[in-house]
Amino acid sequence: MSTPRVFNFAAGPAVLPLPVLEEAQRDLVSMPGVGMSILEMSHRGKFFEGVLKQTEADIRKLAGVPDDYKVLFLPGGASLQFSMVPLNFLPRDGSADYIVSGAWSEKAIKEAKKVGGTKTAWTGKEGNFSTVPAQGDLTLDPNAAYLSFTSNETIHGVEFKYVPGTGNVPLVCDTSSDMFSRPVDVAKHSLIYAGAQKNIGPAGIALVIVKDEWLKKRVEDAKLPTMLNYAIHAENTSMYNTPPCFAIYIMGLVMKWLLSIGGLDGIHAINLRKAATLYAEIDRTGYYKGHAAKDCRSLMNVTFRLPSEALEEKFAKEAKAAGLDGLKGHRSVGGMRASIYNAFPEAGVAALVAFMQEFEKKNG
Amino acid sequence: MSTPRVFNFAAGPAVLPLPVLEEAQRDLVSMPGVGMSILEMSHRGKFFEGVLKQTEADIRKLAGVPDDYKVLFLPGGASLQFSMVPLNFLPRDGSADYIVSGAWSEKAIKEAKKVGGTKTAWTGKEGNFSTVPAQGDLTLDPNAAYLSFTSNETIHGVEFKYVPGTGNVPLVCDTSSDMFSRPVDVAKHSLIYAGAQKNIGPAGIALVIVKDEWLKKRVEDAKLPTMLNYAIHAENTSMYNTPPCFAIYIMGLVMKWLLSIGGLDGIHAINLRKAATLYAEIDRTGYYKGHAAKDCRSLMNVTFRLPSEALEEKFAKEAKAAGLDGLKGHRSVGGMRASIYNAFPEAGVAALVAFMQEFEKKNG
Repeated sequence: MSTPRVFNFAAGPAVLPLPVLEEAQRDLVSMPGVGMSILEMSHRGKFFEGVLKQTEADIRKLAGVPDDYKVLFLPGGASLQFSMVPLNFLPRDGSADYIVSGAWSEKAIKEAKKVGGTKTAWTGKEGNFSTVPAQGDLTLDPNAAYLSFTSNETIHGVEFKYVPGTGNVPLVCDTSSDMFSRPVDVAKHSLIYAGAQKNIGPAGIALVIVKDEWLKKRVEDAKLPTMLNYAIHAENTSMYNTPPCFAIYIMGLVMKWLLSIGGLDGIHAINLRKAATLYAEIDRTGYYKGHAAKDCRSLMNVTFRLPSEALEEKFAKEAKAAGLDGLKGHRSVGGMRASIYNAFPEAGVAALVAFMQEFEKKNG
Repeated sequence: MSTPRVFNFAAGPAVLPLPVLEEAQRDLVSMPGVGMSILEMSHRGKFFEGVLKQTEADIRKLAGVPDDYKVLFLPGGASLQFSMVPLNFLPRDGSADYIVSGAWSEKAIKEAKKVGGTKTAWTGKEGNFSTVPAQGDLTLDPNAAYLSFTSNETIHGVEFKYVPGTGNVPLVCDTSSDMFSRPVDVAKHSLIYAGAQKNIGPAGIALVIVKDEWLKKRVEDAKLPTMLNYAIHAENTSMYNTPPCFAIYIMGLVMKWLLSIGGLDGIHAINLRKAATLYAEIDRTGYYKGHAAKDCRSLMNVTFRLPSEALEEKFAKEAKAAGLDGLKGHRSVGGMRASIYNAFPEAGVAALVAFMQEFEKKNG
C-alpha cells in the first residue's frame, strides 16, 4: 500500500497539484496513442512538439502574455538567469540597477557585477530583509540598462505588492517563488523569469518571458556561449538543444490545472485566503512573531518565529511527526517558514493553524 | 486501456528500461516512506540526498571511477559542456586540440573558439564523417591545454574503438551517445561528459566525471558565471542551486538496472550482439549500404541507406506502421538510423531485421 501524502510546506522543489501527479503517473510507461513514455520521446517528434506548443499557448492565455513577447523554456534554473540577463542586456561599459530585497537578489547582483556596472537602487540588508521598498524609496538611474527586482523573496518571505515604475528603463523581474500566484501585468516588464520548482513545475527548468523589442537590443558579444544567448533560444523555440522535456510536460499539466480552477484570478483568491488564515493565527496572541513587515508579507512563504530557538526546534519536530513537513526556516532567518504555493491545499493551512494553537496551549 | 509500447529507435531522448519506467510510475504520486512525489521533494531533504549519493555510488561502481575523480550532475546537456570545458580549462592565450569526427565535435570546437585558440587534430569532414582517425592520423600539439574527442557520433554513426593516446596532454571525452554502453577506462581521461538522454536517463541533465588534479588547474576567470564553474559545482556536490532532481532520480534507477544485468561487461555483450545482428543484415545482400566504415561502426547508432530516397521514405513510413518508430536518419546523412542504445530490446532488433528482409523481398 502506498504511503499517505503528507502536507508539504517545502520552499522548493515544492508541492504539485495532485491531479497533475495522477495524470503523469497514469501515462508514464506508455503515452496514449504514442506507445512510449514521455521520458523517451524525441523532442523533434509530433507529440512533444504538441506538448511544447500547448504549454506555451496556455501560459499566454493564463498570464495574458502580449503577442510581442517570446516564451522560452531554459535549463539551469533562476541561477543561470542571474548571469544570462546581464550577459545579454548589460553593456560592458554600462550600468544596471538592482533592488536588493533578500538572498536571491543578492545573488543576482553578484553575477551582474562580473559583466558590467551595477547600482543598488535600494537594499533591505540592514533590516535583515524584513521589508521591500516603496516606489519613493528607490534611487533610480535614468540611464540604467535595466532595473532588476525579485517580486518575492523565498527565504525572507517579503513580496512586492506593486510593480516598480522605471520610466523608460527596461524592467526585469525574478518571480521564481510567486510566478502565476496572482495576475501579472507582463507588459510592464521587458523580461520575466522563474525557476519552475516552486509554483509551476518540477526542478530543472526556468520559464522566461521576454519582449521582442528588447531582444533586438541585445548586447552583441561574439564570445557569448551559444547556450546563454536568448536570441538563439528564441529563434529555435527553446529547441536549440534537447530541452528538459519532462519538466516542460509537467509544467504544461500545471498550466492546464491552473486554467481549470479559474486562472490567475481564481488561484489568487485561494492564495489570499490561505495566507490570511495563517497570518491571522500568527497575529492572534503575540506568541508567534512574523518576520516580514505587515505590508509586504508574502502570500507564498510565511516566515515566523517562536519565543525561543528551543521551542522552534520542538515545533518543527512535532509538526513533522503530525504530517506537516518542511516547516523549518532557512538558517539565515531562523524560525519557521510555511511555503503555501499555488498547489498547497487549504486543508494543509487549516491543519497547521490547528497545530499552532495546540502547540501554543502546551508550550505557552 | 494503455497503448502497447512500440520499438523506439529514436536517437535521443531515447528508450529507457521498462523496469525503470515501471518503478518510477509506481512511486510517482507518493514515494514509499515519504508521502510525497519525488517531483515535489526538497533537494536538501534526506530522501533526495540519499538518491544523489546512491546514484553517484552506483556510477562509481559501474564505471570503476577512481577516488580522485568527482562525479557531477549538471544542467544544460552536452551543449553547455561544449562551453564549460574551454571556459574552465582553456587558457585565453592557449590552444586546445579537437578531433572533429562529426556534427557534435563540430559544435564543440565552435564554442571553444570563442574562448581561446584551437587546433584540429583530425577532421573527417571530407568523407562526410564516415570514419574516425587511427592514432597515427592525429596531429597532436604537445602544449595543448587538452585534446577533446567525441567517442560516438550520434548522427553519423561512427565510434572510436580505442582511447586516443595524448602523452601528457589531458584528454576530454564527449560520450553522450555511448556512455556506459561498454567498459570505460576513466583513468585515461581528465574529464568525461555525457548528456543523459541517450543512454543513461531522461533529457535535462549532463553527467560529468572530472579528475581532482585537473580541477585544481582550472583557469581562474573572475568573470566566469558561477553556474559555469566546475569547482563550485564540485564543492557543493552538484547542489549549488536546485539540481534537476527527477532526472537524477531516473538516472539512478537506470544505474541500478545496469548493475542488475551485469554492469558494463554485461550490457556490452548484449550491445555487441544487437549490433552484430543488425550490421549482418545490412551486409547480407548489398541492398542496404552502411554509412560508417566497417572498422568504426557504432554499436549505438546504426546508419544505413537504401537504393533510393523514395525507397527510404517508404521504408520509414512502413516501419512506423509496423511499430518500428524513429528510424528516419538525420537530414545531414540521410537514409535510416537505428539507435539501439542500452535499453533497446533485442526483440526490437530481431523485428527490424525481419522487416528489412521482407522489405527487400518486396522492393528489391
